[in-house]
Amino acid sequence: MLVNGAQTQSIWYDTQADCVKIIDQTRLPHCYEIESLNTLAEAVHAIRSMQVRGAPLIGITAAYGVYLALREGIALSAAYKELLATRPTAINLKWALDRQVDALRENETPQVALTLAQAIEKEDSAICAALGEHGADRLQQIWQQKKLSAGTPDQTPVLNILTHCNAGALATVDWGTALAVVYKSVERGLPVHVWVDETRPRNQGASLTCWELKQHNIDHTLIVDNTGGHLMQQGMVDVVVVGSDRTTANGDVCNKIGTYLKALAAFDNKVPFYAVVPLSTIDFSLASGAEIPIELRGEEEVTCIQGLDASGAVVEVRLAQQGTSAANYGFDVTPGRLVSGIVTEHGVFEANVEALSNLKRS
Amino acid sequence: MLVNGAQTQSIWYDTQADCVKIIDQTRLPHCYEIESLNTLAEAVHAIRSMQVRGAPLIGITAAYGVYLALREGIALSAAYKELLATRPTAINLKWALDRQVDALRENETPQVALTLAQAIEKEDSAICAALGEHGADRLQQIWQQKKLSAGTPDQTPVLNILTHCNAGALATVDWGTALAVVYKSVERGLPVHVWVDETRPRNQGASLTCWELKQHNIDHTLIVDNTGGHLMQQGMVDVVVVGSDRTTANGDVCNKIGTYLKALAAFDNKVPFYAVVPLSTIDFSLASGAEIPIELRGEEEVTCIQGLDASGAVVEVRLAQQGTSAANYGFDVTPGRLVSGIVTEHGVFEANVEALSNLKRS
Repeated sequence: MLVNGAQTQSIWYDTQADCVKIIDQTRLPHCYEIESLNTLAEAVHAIRSMQVRGAPLIGITAAYGVYLALREGIALSAAYKELLATRPTAINLKWALDRQVDALRENETPQVALTLAQAIEKEDSAICAALGEHGADRLQQIWQQKKLSAGTPDQTPVLNILTHCNAGALATVDWGTALAVVYKSVERGLPVHVWVDETRPRNQGASLTCWELKQHNIDHTLIVDNTGGHLMQQGMVDVVVVGSDRTTANGDVCNKIGTYLKALAAFDNKVPFYAVVPLSTIDFSLASGAEIPIELRGEEEVTCIQGLDASGAVVEVRLAQQGTSAANYGFDVTPGRLVSGIVTEHGVFEANVEALSNLKRS
Repeated sequence: MLVNGAQTQSIWYDTQADCVKIIDQTRLPHCYEIESLNTLAEAVHAIRSMQVRGAPLIGITAAYGVYLALREGIALSAAYKELLATRPTAINLKWALDRQVDALRENETPQVALTLAQAIEKEDSAICAALGEHGADRLQQIWQQKKLSAGTPDQTPVLNILTHCNAGALATVDWGTALAVVYKSVERGLPVHVWVDETRPRNQGASLTCWELKQHNIDHTLIVDNTGGHLMQQGMVDVVVVGSDRTTANGDVCNKIGTYLKALAAFDNKVPFYAVVPLSTIDFSLASGAEIPIELRGEEEVTCIQGLDASGAVVEVRLAQQGTSAANYGFDVTPGRLVSGIVTEHGVFEANVEALSNLKRS
């Protein structure tokens, strides 16, 4: 990921300072700040307060959290419990913690935990790059098709991609999941334009996805979450790509609230809809998305919002009247029947039990 | 409509001051202020800046605008042109202006224009009350059905209604369209709870619908526009009611951007979806919704937002980074195939050419 022209990551281990460094995502897009995590409590806070968010990044932060805990002399079982309780929906949290438990079975030392966390971090980068390539294969096909049906072979049509929330480098270590597909498509020379859903209530689209795309000089337009259906009706979207916080054995895709509505619109308008999902995000233990716990977050995320005031300070303002109740569900489930394909590091699979069971064996 | 316990309207003619009074809706929910319109320019500004909004109320304001123009000595044709150009999507604007042209054909005096504007105002109130009664008939049936299928005849289930944007008294003179159905259902003793979509970008749901429902002590919960699909999947919505800015001969319903997404979710989950539409909003001259001009508004409505800061002042804050482009389409079209019924002042009609052509003759 490029930030101000330099390569960086969303998380890394700083050998010299012996601490974990993260980009504080609650401060973007208005301030770019690096935060140090030195303790289990700081790792827990980073996940819970969404300084780090996105299923893969949550998992990696938890893996590092185990290292920080053991270094403090906190028992693995206690650290496991505390980290697992930070957020309920993304399965990567459990996946990463279980890998730590396995690795530490013989030798419960901070060094073993650190080595594994660093390995998961490197692995994630490679997996996301692979996700990007497999997804870009599909986008290239869709673009070729668009070129053909435009009937003007000399002209180069733009490929219009719609994405929801942030499934970018900021949701992983580097590259991202859905946005890896965009980045790899751009590397191949595809002329792309991205419609970015602002993604209320926390506006990760407006705050994080637009920021990332701007850092990479990729053409994009911000829209409110209500707009995607109209754009699809008007033929202004060629493909939808999203990430996932947990995908179940039958291809149901749990992702940021509102994803289901975009999938319905894509299906209704014959726009391909891809979920870009590392294997670590697939929960083969659940038969369907109905079994996934959906996080219910605080109502102040709906009734209030952060922005830059006239003086350039980041302030919170109240949108609704005092006393207005709000319900804030963090995720929804898109049934596999609406999903054109699940893009994984092993290729693209149909969103059903049969296809995904092949993946389980791979 | 009740405001602080007293009956009022969104617009009225003040005989004593010889001017038109409106509630300035750009100031709600944080400030309740009455504005005076004395000139054509003020009426045009009120519509364009959305001090008044909602298809019926725009029409009535335009009718009063003709009176103010004639009083200033401005020619009817000039006033017609200027008022018609204020906003492109709602058909009521043209409908009200055409009625003025008809009325003024013989005798182009301010008094004739005022008399008609006042008549349209009174008429609108009665029409909205009728819309409410017809819609409440349907809601009562849905509620009875819910009671039966709950299998606990002693218990009284709550009827969960979802609405988008503001189709309330504030969108009309009094009662509203979609919210008239809610108000009339409450009058009949139905225990209702309303899920209110905040309705980005201008948040008319959070700012206007929640405010109205609070003034009437009706149980409601604010949600972001992304949430409705998940609620419907979970069986937490019994019926969707929305207004319309223009409905075409085939039953396509043009309404606030995002309505189409909710209609898709309602259809996918077998939740009845009603558009509540006075005849003045039906454009029989258009065969389908594809012909309706969709308003493209300024991008600052997406990139910035208004709210109450810590000191209690209404301020605007910037959400996206400076330089981020945004696209701001005001409306979308819900195909008639997704609409369970069009509620009009003459009863409830199916959303297709045949059914609506009966209405045309009525």
